Amino acid sequence: MPADALSLTFAALADPTRRAILARLSRGETSVGELAAPFEITAPAITKHLKMLERAGLISRSRQAQWRPCRLEARPLREVADFLEQYRQFWEQSLDRLDDYLQALQAKEKEDESSHGADG
Amino acid sequence: MPADALSLTFAALADPTRRAILARLSRGETSVGELAAPFEITAPAITKHLKMLERAGLISRSRQAQWRPCRLEARPLREVADFLEQYRQFWEQSLDRLDDYLQALQAKEKEDESSHGADG
Repeated sequence: MPADALSLTFAALADPTRRAILARLSRGETSVGELAAPFEITAPAITKHLKMLERAGLISRSRQAQWRPCRLEARPLREVADFLEQYRQFWEQSLDRLDDYLQALQAKEKEDESSHGADG
Repeated sequence: MPADALSLTFAALADPTRRAILARLSRGETSVGELAAPFEITAPAITKHLKMLERAGLISRSRQAQWRPCRLEARPLREVADFLEQYRQFWEQSLDRLDDYLQALQAKEKEDESSHGADG
């Protein structure tokens, strides 16, 4: 079954080395050699990671004569952001609940302090 | 190698059935039977999907006597949103470039119209 675009993007992001490659490319385009340098993995392993990123459209490689720099392509990340938007209310709700809880806790502490400090 | 939390989340999201399960749960908690109904897949396949979602912390299942409803847990999605923030400037830049291009195109059309319409 051929994977849909969003599934390819999520699968490409499901690996810390591939996310580190994207983070490096967010600082500017670079050669495969330079990209591979910080990772203690083999050249074929890096090539495999780059292929997954390229298949998801997260990087592109230009066809220049001597070197083929990789660059970040942000469009699939925007699609992930669009996907997430439908769920934003859920994590904001849980942050609100946490906030309410912390405020209630602080109010109670103040109340305790003032009742204890009434005769001080 | 045990996967990190973010990789588990991305791997769990890399499947249209699992994303459809999350979308269903965003409308309220439900039983596994109800969750499985719209999908033409076997009960063991649904169970496997739920396990991946549960492992990533994207759903939880309460321990009630007669049924164990599934519910959406949005926290890992917030972590994905946090991860994406560092790349937002890249897709916004490309939208800006598209916007600049469209504006230049419209300006040119107006210019052409007014020069063609000068004697009309």
